[in-house]
Amino acid sequence: MKLLEERILKDGIVLKGDVLKVGSFLNQQLDVPFLCEACKEFYRLYKDAGVTKILTIEASGIAIAALTAQYFGVPVVFAKKSKSDNIAADVYSGRVVSYTHGNEAQAIVSKEYISKEDRLLLIDDFLARGSALEALLAIAGQAGAAVVGAGIAIEKAYQGGGDALRAAGLRIESLARIASMDEEKGIVFC
Amino acid sequence: MKLLEERILKDGIVLKGDVLKVGSFLNQQLDVPFLCEACKEFYRLYKDAGVTKILTIEASGIAIAALTAQYFGVPVVFAKKSKSDNIAADVYSGRVVSYTHGNEAQAIVSKEYISKEDRLLLIDDFLARGSALEALLAIAGQAGAAVVGAGIAIEKAYQGGGDALRAAGLRIESLARIASMDEEKGIVFC
Repeated sequence: MKLLEERILKDGIVLKGDVLKVGSFLNQQLDVPFLCEACKEFYRLYKDAGVTKILTIEASGIAIAALTAQYFGVPVVFAKKSKSDNIAADVYSGRVVSYTHGNEAQAIVSKEYISKEDRLLLIDDFLARGSALEALLAIAGQAGAAVVGAGIAIEKAYQGGGDALRAAGLRIESLARIASMDEEKGIVFC
Repeated sequence: MKLLEERILKDGIVLKGDVLKVGSFLNQQLDVPFLCEACKEFYRLYKDAGVTKILTIEASGIAIAALTAQYFGVPVVFAKKSKSDNIAADVYSGRVVSYTHGNEAQAIVSKEYISKEDRLLLIDDFLARGSALEALLAIAGQAGAAVVGAGIAIEKAYQGGGDALRAAGLRIESLARIASMDEEKGIVFC
């Protein structure tokens, strides 16, 4: 999506440690009128997929999931992150590793909010190694729900998580796919 | 707002420890088409207030803040919660006490995202003793930004936080105000 690529080039900042800072429009500050245009694109891509619910993970996925859900006319369920390894009996869960922050957590969703009748669209702001998507897939699998695909704002394609999940059969639509990223040479899109 | 009161009576569950569970439509699962109607009400109430930005706090405030912001055509800034007491020099911060969860945290916002030119609308899902709003007011104050008021989905009016802040001069618009709440007697609105 040209619009998002241009915005990343204009306002994204490449930091040490393979971090793309997009806090001015996608995380911490959310440029909502701009994000609505991005979210309409998710609707255009998945509008015929029979989506019944959007599944995302707190915190930065929530805004784009909610803005996208209004075009589908469906609810959002967001997985909460818990540092505890004690998983209650009434939740579905999946392990999330954050390579950026060097920590891990459990993503958990109450069983009452996803059922085997659901057709889920997974939404998240970033896809790198794919850990968050894998956790959401695990949660969907435990619920017996179908996953129609994933909608991602920014994919760090060079980290391979997206392609590995595509090879495993998941449909992934990323609005911007970064082929390489470097503090000096800048950002190159796929 | 009649619509929200009816929904709370239909789907809200009063639990021990003064907890109102609204996870099926406002937290964990978000009934986005329904929430859009609630957020339009915030717009109707504040549309002439010259709002330049909406300020909220993660995680459950983000969805209604983002859905509201689209009607105003403005960005959202969300405060992150940090358990650490080490506050970096480049952030504004305020202390948040959660009486429900029995813990406290620092709400922090990077200085680059709020300025003294801003006219902020504070948005949150719940208002009880007012700790989260006080933290957001502290952040706004440090930035020198004006606060036009607050938009709250559910106010536990009997806890007094809202009235104390109103007495201090803050405009607060709550879509549903609970006068009393009890596991057996149920919910009574103001």
